[in-house]
Amino acid sequence: MTGRTRRWNGWGFADVSFTLPDAARTWLLRRLGDGGAMAAVSEAEIALPDARPVGDLGAAVSSDPSRRLRHACGASFPDLVALRTGTVAAFPDAVAFPETAGEVVAVLRAAAAADVRVVVRGGGTSVVGGVTVAPDDRPVVVLSLDRLSGLTSLDPVSRLAGFGAGTLGPAVEAALAPHGLRLGHEPQSFELSSVGGWVATRSAGQRSTGIGKIDELVAGLEVATVDGLWRLPALPASAAGPELRRLVVGSEGRFGVITEATLRVRPLPMHEDGVVVLMPGWETGVTACRELVQAGVAIEVLRLSDPTETSFAQTLIHMSPVAARVSGLLFRTKRFREGCALLLGWTGTPAEVRSARLATAEIWRAHGGLAVGRGGWRRWRSDRFHHPYLRDTLLGQGWGVDTFETAATWSDLPALHAGVRAALDEAGRSAGLGVAVLCHLSHAYTDGASHYFTFFWPLRAGRAVADWRVLKEAATRGLLAAGGTLTHHHGVGTMHAPYLADEIGPHGLRVLRAVAGVSDPAGTLNPGVLLGGHAMPGAPAEPVSPRTPDPRPRTPGGREGD
Amino acid sequence: MTGRTRRWNGWGFADVSFTLPDAARTWLLRRLGDGGAMAAVSEAEIALPDARPVGDLGAAVSSDPSRRLRHACGASFPDLVALRTGTVAAFPDAVAFPETAGEVVAVLRAAAAADVRVVVRGGGTSVVGGVTVAPDDRPVVVLSLDRLSGLTSLDPVSRLAGFGAGTLGPAVEAALAPHGLRLGHEPQSFELSSVGGWVATRSAGQRSTGIGKIDELVAGLEVATVDGLWRLPALPASAAGPELRRLVVGSEGRFGVITEATLRVRPLPMHEDGVVVLMPGWETGVTACRELVQAGVAIEVLRLSDPTETSFAQTLIHMSPVAARVSGLLFRTKRFREGCALLLGWTGTPAEVRSARLATAEIWRAHGGLAVGRGGWRRWRSDRFHHPYLRDTLLGQGWGVDTFETAATWSDLPALHAGVRAALDEAGRSAGLGVAVLCHLSHAYTDGASHYFTFFWPLRAGRAVADWRVLKEAATRGLLAAGGTLTHHHGVGTMHAPYLADEIGPHGLRVLRAVAGVSDPAGTLNPGVLLGGHAMPGAPAEPVSPRTPDPRPRTPGGREGD
Repeated sequence: MTGRTRRWNGWGFADVSFTLPDAARTWLLRRLGDGGAMAAVSEAEIALPDARPVGDLGAAVSSDPSRRLRHACGASFPDLVALRTGTVAAFPDAVAFPETAGEVVAVLRAAAAADVRVVVRGGGTSVVGGVTVAPDDRPVVVLSLDRLSGLTSLDPVSRLAGFGAGTLGPAVEAALAPHGLRLGHEPQSFELSSVGGWVATRSAGQRSTGIGKIDELVAGLEVATVDGLWRLPALPASAAGPELRRLVVGSEGRFGVITEATLRVRPLPMHEDGVVVLMPGWETGVTACRELVQAGVAIEVLRLSDPTETSFAQTLIHMSPVAARVSGLLFRTKRFREGCALLLGWTGTPAEVRSARLATAEIWRAHGGLAVGRGGWRRWRSDRFHHPYLRDTLLGQGWGVDTFETAATWSDLPALHAGVRAALDEAGRSAGLGVAVLCHLSHAYTDGASHYFTFFWPLRAGRAVADWRVLKEAATRGLLAAGGTLTHHHGVGTMHAPYLADEIGPHGLRVLRAVAGVSDPAGTLNPGVLLGGHAMPGAPAEPVSPRTPDPRPRTPGGREGD
Repeated sequence: MTGRTRRWNGWGFADVSFTLPDAARTWLLRRLGDGGAMAAVSEAEIALPDARPVGDLGAAVSSDPSRRLRHACGASFPDLVALRTGTVAAFPDAVAFPETAGEVVAVLRAAAAADVRVVVRGGGTSVVGGVTVAPDDRPVVVLSLDRLSGLTSLDPVSRLAGFGAGTLGPAVEAALAPHGLRLGHEPQSFELSSVGGWVATRSAGQRSTGIGKIDELVAGLEVATVDGLWRLPALPASAAGPELRRLVVGSEGRFGVITEATLRVRPLPMHEDGVVVLMPGWETGVTACRELVQAGVAIEVLRLSDPTETSFAQTLIHMSPVAARVSGLLFRTKRFREGCALLLGWTGTPAEVRSARLATAEIWRAHGGLAVGRGGWRRWRSDRFHHPYLRDTLLGQGWGVDTFETAATWSDLPALHAGVRAALDEAGRSAGLGVAVLCHLSHAYTDGASHYFTFFWPLRAGRAVADWRVLKEAATRGLLAAGGTLTHHHGVGTMHAPYLADEIGPHGLRVLRAVAGVSDPAGTLNPGVLLGGHAMPGAPAEPVSPRTPDPRPRTPGGREGD
């Protein structure tokens, strides 16, 4: 824990905010027009219902209203709106703070016995409804993992480090650095999110092209269930049946509570360098990214913004008048009229970084790229955890913004990029809303890459969530129809649960439900998350299946595609 | 299919055999003494019971005795003994040869409806009882995937290739090579084993240090169950719940029948090079291997033999008298008295290979290694699929031999190497058997590596399997006690099933059983494999737990380690 105060009704720390530059305001106004600013209510205006009794849970518990309010929501768009407007749908009746894995087991057993629902919470940064408390006839406890924090084991020879599930990103790196080690997993929520949350949601960091997703970083796990502690030892590889660690990674608290993870760490790099390269267009930029990863060039950070994102990003930069003029001229040349910013970062010994940079430059030059210096890299290094603060700023100025992400094979990506933007444009048109859509490619693999989309729209009084829902649903259907995964690193939560069967099949859903059935037989944990079955603001009421327009019966024993 | 005839009662092709050099014979005699040669019965001497009716299975079926015999066993030590001595415990009543995935579904449905057991068979090379037919009150069908063979899709841009589950190793590479691509997955069984078998057993190839295990190579899967075809699309990465492809990888046919796999392929390398380096000892050799992978040196093949394996391997090489003399002198120097052969291979452009070789040499030299030329590398290239033939040769000369493999963290490996050898020595002593134990390190990861053990003992009349069982059990308990995985790439089969809970916990076993329950509700598939519950020659009758000497109750709801 950093000791800094977290904002109760918005993203992040209370002492950080994102001021919208005039240029960005102009950019949005031109595309979206004016929206209705959403005022923020004060904490005093939020009335909580009386807390229902939750019984003895075997761990420290608080029913303080301020705690209950601060553990009611995650950080999704509907969550932000609910907190900002004082329309939070439900509050936990209590927040439990177990201090040991044994106490987590005790809470699970007591909750199962007393028919109390448990919402498991790490850093609380879910943007997909993963930690949002939903109205429930039964009492609801939020199980906070804050106190299961810190380095629990270190094996520098095998490069393995164990951490309590509640350890936040900065604490992970602070514990490793004195040993000359780092994890390198840096999701945008890094300062606020926890090891357990990363594992539970299959997260990816902004350095994942070099570091790998959390999936690859998990060597061992400890999971609390009502049966006790389930330990999956740290092993480099195995053929002893299916990889159960991978079944826990992404389980979003439905198969038990992750209490500890043993992670694969690496030495702190001697040197780091980066650059922004201007590519002449999206297609050629994507091709360059593909060639880079398929050639095995040692890139740690790779991020290619499409022309719209590149254009918007320009408005957020405070450039000197000269730099601004040069940049303006560059984007008016024929070559870079559809220019795409490609951010690249390398780490290692100075020789390794130099060699990787040379190999990278060979490919970007072959595709007409032009290096525009380290300034953009330095800005990314200093600002990379700050962009989510923009959402709160924009709400206050009349615009909504949300992000979503997917991944697909290189062959499917061009149609996906076009298809998602078309789906959002069309949905906006039908709803009478201007929509601006930004996209970047990141997290590249030999067989494909992720696309991360940001969309803006003007707020209409009392319709913020309804309008968001229309756009979100169109985007989700669009990306699934184009062969993308439902989510590359945000997770399923309650928001994406109705679409999950489209990706993993009705049989996949049955498999997950069967595992939840043995891990959480009382159905205590994280109602509605991952497997659905619980209403959530923003989720469609019925399962949808954009990939299979005529879904077959989903009852066990039904025929599926044979 | 290659068209070559497979040996009905031993490993591999009928036109290949392994002649034991005199030097090897002397080496074994000196350590083990003479054993009783095990004569091989002729096919005509094996009487099969009448085949029980299996009903209409919806696919081509054969009850020809020769087919039934050839589909009764895998390639484990007890399998080889059973075939060689005509003591096969059970035969399938029929062998089904579905030609489409739909026919596989039909067979599963018909079998479930008629209470017929199904043993799924790819290449039939399981060394852990994964395809051995066990005596059963109900009729047993072997479901052969031979006819689901060949390239089914190719996306060279995304480097993805789909293959029918029955496609054998050489057919995979033959289909890819014209496109300038390769898979590079080369288990020792490569010429005989299939894509589906590789996936089902979580196999690793001899190039896995560079290529990765099959786990990493699987992008998409199609699985037949009684519910129909379960398709998990090829995606580079996802956060849409747990990675279900990884739940199918290693499922050994208990969660359905893998009918197709989409695999990550790569370009054929322009160049390949390798070398054998003599390291002064096991510990320093292991350290050098660790430093190589942790430094990220691009090594494709890495294999370090311990002094005993190095010594035995020398006896298998046909060296010129001069070379033999030089080699003999070298091993008599103080520096290499405990010499360990380190095999290294690199692929890529000539420049990449040169650069990787230089980086590798820097590390081996720092640890006192001495390159002894490309001869050993060339021999490995030409002979690497031939070593399993040695088992049959040795049976005919009075010695038993079996292999097993594990993996552990770098920190645990030294004690594991010592502990497993001590366990085998002790078990041999108690049983009055000489035992020779060889080991090599291969499949190296940043956090650990695999150890592959070979052990020899003299055969005693009528006691071959009983003696083997004593040694195998001691070895398994030894490796588990030392923190190794039950198996790094051979799989669980029936042989390792009683030990599985030791690695994944009783809760892990409950999870796997729950998944089997929804995927194969009638309990039709692969009786006894992976999850146990079916007797098999060589498996202990009761679950064992070397890691936890005082195992807690395993009933659901029991406490486990909290």
